[in-house]
Amino acid sequence: MNGLACKNPAWVQANDFSFSGLHNPGNTGNPFGSAVTPVTVAQIPGLNTLGISMVRIDYAPWGVVAPHYHPRATEILTVIEGSLEVGFVTSNPDNRLISKTLQKGDVFVFPVGLVHFQRNIGHMNVVAISGLSSQNPGVSTIANVVFGSKPDISTDILAKAFQVDKNIVQQIQWRF
Amino acid sequence: MNGLACKNPAWVQANDFSFSGLHNPGNTGNPFGSAVTPVTVAQIPGLNTLGISMVRIDYAPWGVVAPHYHPRATEILTVIEGSLEVGFVTSNPDNRLISKTLQKGDVFVFPVGLVHFQRNIGHMNVVAISGLSSQNPGVSTIANVVFGSKPDISTDILAKAFQVDKNIVQQIQWRF
Amino acid sequence: MNGLACKNPAWVQANDFSFSGLHNPGNTGNPFGSAVTPVTVAQIPGLNTLGISMVRIDYAPWGVVAPHYHPRATEILTVIEGSLEVGFVTSNPDNRLISKTLQKGDVFVFPVGLVHFQRNIGHMNVVAISGLSSQNPGVSTIANVVFGSKPDISTDILAKAFQVDKNIVQQIQWRF
Amino acid sequence: MNGLACKNPAWVQANDFSFSGLHNPGNTGNPFGSAVTPVTVAQIPGLNTLGISMVRIDYAPWGVVAPHYHPRATEILTVIEGSLEVGFVTSNPDNRLISKTLQKGDVFVFPVGLVHFQRNIGHMNVVAISGLSSQNPGVSTIANVVFGSKPDISTDILAKAFQVDKNIVQQIQWRF
Amino acid sequence: MNGLACKNPAWVQANDFSFSGLHNPGNTGNPFGSAVTPVTVAQIPGLNTLGISMVRIDYAPWGVVAPHYHPRATEILTVIEGSLEVGFVTSNPDNRLISKTLQKGDVFVFPVGLVHFQRNIGHMNVVAISGLSSQNPGVSTIANVVFGSKPDISTDILAKAFQVDKNIVQQIQWRF
Amino acid sequence: MNGLACKNPAWVQANDFSFSGLHNPGNTGNPFGSAVTPVTVAQIPGLNTLGISMVRIDYAPWGVVAPHYHPRATEILTVIEGSLEVGFVTSNPDNRLISKTLQKGDVFVFPVGLVHFQRNIGHMNVVAISGLSSQNPGVSTIANVVFGSKPDISTDILAKAFQVDKNIVQQIQWRF
Repeated sequence: MNGLACKNPAWVQANDFSFSGLHNPGNTGNPFGSAVTPVTVAQIPGLNTLGISMVRIDYAPWGVVAPHYHPRATEILTVIEGSLEVGFVTSNPDNRLISKTLQKGDVFVFPVGLVHFQRNIGHMNVVAISGLSSQNPGVSTIANVVFGSKPDISTDILAKAFQVDKNIVQQIQWRF
Repeated sequence: MNGLACKNPAWVQANDFSFSGLHNPGNTGNPFGSAVTPVTVAQIPGLNTLGISMVRIDYAPWGVVAPHYHPRATEILTVIEGSLEVGFVTSNPDNRLISKTLQKGDVFVFPVGLVHFQRNIGHMNVVAISGLSSQNPGVSTIANVVFGSKPDISTDILAKAFQVDKNIVQQIQWRF
Repeated sequence: MNGLACKNPAWVQANDFSFSGLHNPGNTGNPFGSAVTPVTVAQIPGLNTLGISMVRIDYAPWGVVAPHYHPRATEILTVIEGSLEVGFVTSNPDNRLISKTLQKGDVFVFPVGLVHFQRNIGHMNVVAISGLSSQNPGVSTIANVVFGSKPDISTDILAKAFQVDKNIVQQIQWRF
Repeated sequence: MNGLACKNPAWVQANDFSFSGLHNPGNTGNPFGSAVTPVTVAQIPGLNTLGISMVRIDYAPWGVVAPHYHPRATEILTVIEGSLEVGFVTSNPDNRLISKTLQKGDVFVFPVGLVHFQRNIGHMNVVAISGLSSQNPGVSTIANVVFGSKPDISTDILAKAFQVDKNIVQQIQWRF
Repeated sequence: MNGLACKNPAWVQANDFSFSGLHNPGNTGNPFGSAVTPVTVAQIPGLNTLGISMVRIDYAPWGVVAPHYHPRATEILTVIEGSLEVGFVTSNPDNRLISKTLQKGDVFVFPVGLVHFQRNIGHMNVVAISGLSSQNPGVSTIANVVFGSKPDISTDILAKAFQVDKNIVQQIQWRF
Repeated sequence: MNGLACKNPAWVQANDFSFSGLHNPGNTGNPFGSAVTPVTVAQIPGLNTLGISMVRIDYAPWGVVAPHYHPRATEILTVIEGSLEVGFVTSNPDNRLISKTLQKGDVFVFPVGLVHFQRNIGHMNVVAISGLSSQNPGVSTIANVVFGSKPDISTDILAKAFQVDKNIVQQIQWRF
């Protein structure tokens, strides 16, 4: 899946299984007001083939992690500090929004392959830690994939898909 | 995954493994100008656990199958009649659009979990047949999931995610 | 399973995911009166690891695809043109033949690992398209495996297995 | 796969994981001169989901286990007593016969989904023990599947498949 | 694997995917000076089939999580507060101890099926959060399994296995 | 999992699928009075990816195979000669010992990942043959992993884990 070869077991060391710095807040000074610090097989080579990874997520007040999905992983999130609105949407035909406001110590699950999001709904920073069920979960952020691909998807296709005028599609495409 | 129990092997019949009518055009009289006729475990019970399904897709002139993804299946499509623009977008951080114009007899692959779309680019109807690598592939259509969920995702979250004014978000939400 | 390495994602192109020519009839001028045009990982490198492939099958009048099985794939077939007799046989101890006559637009499933066959039962050419649940499904054609292996299976073993005289076994072996 | 439910772990007993009698020779008084004593999930309920089973095989002098394959299991066989000719045939297009004569203490592997057979080539009884990589490996014996299905595969199809006269096909069908 | 049936998708609610209280310290007043608070499919039914779970671990000063392994999960642990000695031992024949002292913000991986342990090496409480790659990871604590099974493993077997006098084995068995 | 590449199918030979000598008794002249002769992918390269292996186990009178587990395989064992006490222990919280005395021809299953052991309870040599559900099952022998790792696990941790004095821990560590 990820094309990585395994290290000879005789040569592995503790450093192949460790990472430092997850206590450091990420930089939320961006339009979304959020930051994700991943600890996947890219950071810990020893995770290769082991089916798990971890991320820290920081949210400035009212910061958002935009709707996205992980093609290869379920996510289980716990709130370390603050209050967080979270939700995921089921696939066709129901497209039900399953959402909840989490407090410190709450845990929530985003099932594999479903679009989900989070939003800080308070005036303080929020910190969350998540486990993901793949060493290389992948992320497809909807806005980037649909309106920010390189090259662009035809404006005409998106106008038809979202049932809006082409100039609105272009307005969004310019942002990404 | 799908919660279906298997039939006693002694009782299975040919009808548990068959379906009729895939030669019939779907009804493309809708805003998208397209129609999908699925043949999954919902239509053929004998597909349970077997990891495959099939669909027929019809496109009116300039009809579109809007951006969507299958959480559990890769799709392999062949054009039976007409010319079809197809594409998929890779996940973060590259978000590359891989696209092509297909003619009759061309085959194209949409990898599992990636957002993809098709558009009829001619003045005649287009027909395609696809195989999918799951008996129950699932579909998440981006516009429906993001702007048409029940209940709605907060306008504020979507405005931030797509970096547009809330009234544009609401305009799209009203359509779904 | 197939020993193929994946291409660097940054270098993939639309051509790694496409194939042309599935609208062309195969050459049925052979003793079986049938032809299979495969579209597997051998034709589309981008199918590697994705668990799906497609074939076109052409049948001259009364042409047969001889009994065979796919060790790694279920097959879902639809008839594009003509009438086709199809069937598969369950494993021991029942060895039930599940068969049906298909018309244009009919779909039929051959479960993974079970022996199956098709026969054109009309006076016109038949065309079918199948999806298979592996990028490299494999094919073991019974007659070739049993009577046409290189080197031959001992005539004595086959005579005992099929409960016939050795000269009948040799007669079949000579054909393969 | 096999539709069996698991027992409540609190109720399992040693008897759910054991079987007696594998030291007893099977009855080889049949046209093939061989007998298979299976120890699968049908004999040991505790094997459910565990991916392994075992068989004892007895061969009278010159006895044969006819060409067959296991759709869900690789087989690893060791000869406890006697001399045994074994072989398997690779899938299309090569159809290579990989065969060997085994002595007491030799071990041989029959890869999943490939047709294989054994024959006692001595004047004494042979005993073998095999492990199989499924709790429910399944068996498709070629002669039974092709010439002994219920109902029969059309004589015409088999005549074409094996490139012989219909009366030879019927002669074999009568035996099964 | 766990014998749980899935809920009808139409009836799932946010509560099927959430849990509260992971900010509460566990009770470390026990001989080991540690406490594990699990959030698995037993606490969140919606985790069924999703391949992930989470635990909070509390360690009193010098508290120990005794050597154990998870038959079905890799564990990825991050230290929220304090200093923690961690290690795992590779399988035969090397039995290498891979260990490290972790500080706040450090992350460490315990590969599936390998024996591992943790110890608080400071004078303050330690808190860690782990993700595990199964909704039902299972735990086999070595001391409990070997010296505390019900009924006991024969003293004679353990004396031979650990190469010590039987009275030492019995002394340990009495504790469990 | 094991990092082995597959051989080109065109070059495989019968020797890639065979091994000789499993009829030879292993050398039980060691403190445990037992010997294991493995036939895994290390002995038969053709087993790669095929999910099965085999072992012969010899036990001198009162010889023991010490408590161990296979992280990647279920084991199915049959007694060829003699009487054998066998058992496995379920995971937390029950830690039930499921045990039985086997006679010649008896078969017993040790589920994947659970600690198990065997002991010859008679005055003659015992021989057993096992199948294992992986080409590379792995073995973690409890005493070696816990008391014989290189370097040692801290005496303090083991004393706390087994609830005994440090000098007893050291006494066991010295043996391994």
